[in-house]
Amino acid sequence: MKFARIGAAGRERPVVVAEDHYLDLSALTDDIDGTFLSQSQDRVAAAVRAGELPRVERAGQRIGAPIARPSAVICVGMNYAAHAAESGALPPDDLVVFLKTPNTVAGPDDDVTIPPGSVKTDWEVELGVVIGRRASYLDSPDEALSYVAGYTLVNDLSEREWQIERSGGQWSKGKSFPGFSPVGPWLATADEIDPTELRLRSSVNGEPRQDSHTSDMIFGVAQIVWRLSQFLVLEPGDLIMTGTPEGVALSGRFPYLRPGDVVEVEIDGLGRQRQVTR
Amino acid sequence: MKFARIGAAGRERPVVVAEDHYLDLSALTDDIDGTFLSQSQDRVAAAVRAGELPRVERAGQRIGAPIARPSAVICVGMNYAAHAAESGALPPDDLVVFLKTPNTVAGPDDDVTIPPGSVKTDWEVELGVVIGRRASYLDSPDEALSYVAGYTLVNDLSEREWQIERSGGQWSKGKSFPGFSPVGPWLATADEIDPTELRLRSSVNGEPRQDSHTSDMIFGVAQIVWRLSQFLVLEPGDLIMTGTPEGVALSGRFPYLRPGDVVEVEIDGLGRQRQVTR
Repeated sequence: MKFARIGAAGRERPVVVAEDHYLDLSALTDDIDGTFLSQSQDRVAAAVRAGELPRVERAGQRIGAPIARPSAVICVGMNYAAHAAESGALPPDDLVVFLKTPNTVAGPDDDVTIPPGSVKTDWEVELGVVIGRRASYLDSPDEALSYVAGYTLVNDLSEREWQIERSGGQWSKGKSFPGFSPVGPWLATADEIDPTELRLRSSVNGEPRQDSHTSDMIFGVAQIVWRLSQFLVLEPGDLIMTGTPEGVALSGRFPYLRPGDVVEVEIDGLGRQRQVTR
Repeated sequence: MKFARIGAAGRERPVVVAEDHYLDLSALTDDIDGTFLSQSQDRVAAAVRAGELPRVERAGQRIGAPIARPSAVICVGMNYAAHAAESGALPPDDLVVFLKTPNTVAGPDDDVTIPPGSVKTDWEVELGVVIGRRASYLDSPDEALSYVAGYTLVNDLSEREWQIERSGGQWSKGKSFPGFSPVGPWLATADEIDPTELRLRSSVNGEPRQDSHTSDMIFGVAQIVWRLSQFLVLEPGDLIMTGTPEGVALSGRFPYLRPGDVVEVEIDGLGRQRQVTR
């Protein structure tokens, strides 16, 4: 199944994504949050099959992030070898982890405000992992995927001057500007997605930027969830951004974002985002 | 006023701290959270004066963190020149910022579990700042203190191997182990505290470790809140840890924590914490 949240920012309602319309989930849950994601979805699937959920048309609906505000947004850095190289770093031998403030989460097509004075705002298409069960000190990567509720598309927007040049080395500073984490358009439940074989792409004003595969990740999703659980507690509804492949502006090969640019990111099976910068 | 939360972990109730007892706040608020902290406290003060709040005895009560789980825990690193020096760094010319996952917040006297295999678990006494109003792009440091609801005591526990040696340089990795952010025993409202003139101390097994003053901060509270607001949105109820002074184990002058150690941290007017490690 695919879950989404539609409506005005801060007042989204939960829906199931159907072929050319939505099905209203409000009768079964208030939100796509940790509580909902930690439960079996059998009841939802049965309601869909039985045609019990009210139909909602797609036209004219704002799409929100497909999950309620997480308790944590956890990011893996330098997780594609070619991106590490374009950033001037060696591939890491263990996870590189930083956090974004959870209030950066935005809808997939919301406008993006370039921070005041910024000349180094950058895009990063990433596979997002949403946690379904509390995960702490997992025994092995083999069990890690059973803690994943599903997958989504994220753009890990980054202001490189604040992230790198004026940060004292701690990246979070350039990662938490308002609206810097567009998520969605939907959350695909884990049974629908093989996270090892997804093509990721980004473009700016229709010109290709990133084009890679999750098979090029240094640490795959199972490794990431298992390794994270060794030094923090993952909560249901938490969002993990799994790192971005090469092709960002930081490489020097492309200009940074300017007001009026159109950024698009896309992952197989997880839809597409389109942001206009301002 | 001083607010606290007492009772079993996850089921704390809000109280006002009175001379030798508590006053139950449950009739006026469900929790000491962002919603409560963003409101005027006049109603609470009036209820206290009128003797309307039920008395609760102190004896036998577990003390929780004095605030509900924040939307973000934001930490300033290297904010005391002597601590920067003992860590082998120059004093920064701008904020160094990293985040802890909000689920690290624990009660001030809860036992601390040393992470499995850790031999470099360290203490850090810090002044905690709790936000009272949404703060974004503040015009100047002069207005920043009006966004502060109050102050509290925190121990920013840190696992140095995960923070430094196996982190790829991003500190959050050694900062978010379960229970690594004891907070409290109380939140003192901003009118009660001058954040520029507080003595901070820590000890291990009764032996002194840190002993400094907030007057030695490189960036004071007004500077911190103003500067943070330039690159992220502070929400009511968010917790800022303002950095630790010299005297931690990372300096090489003291041993790291071992099971059975007793860690105590203390700040003038903000009480004392006592953790037994295990």
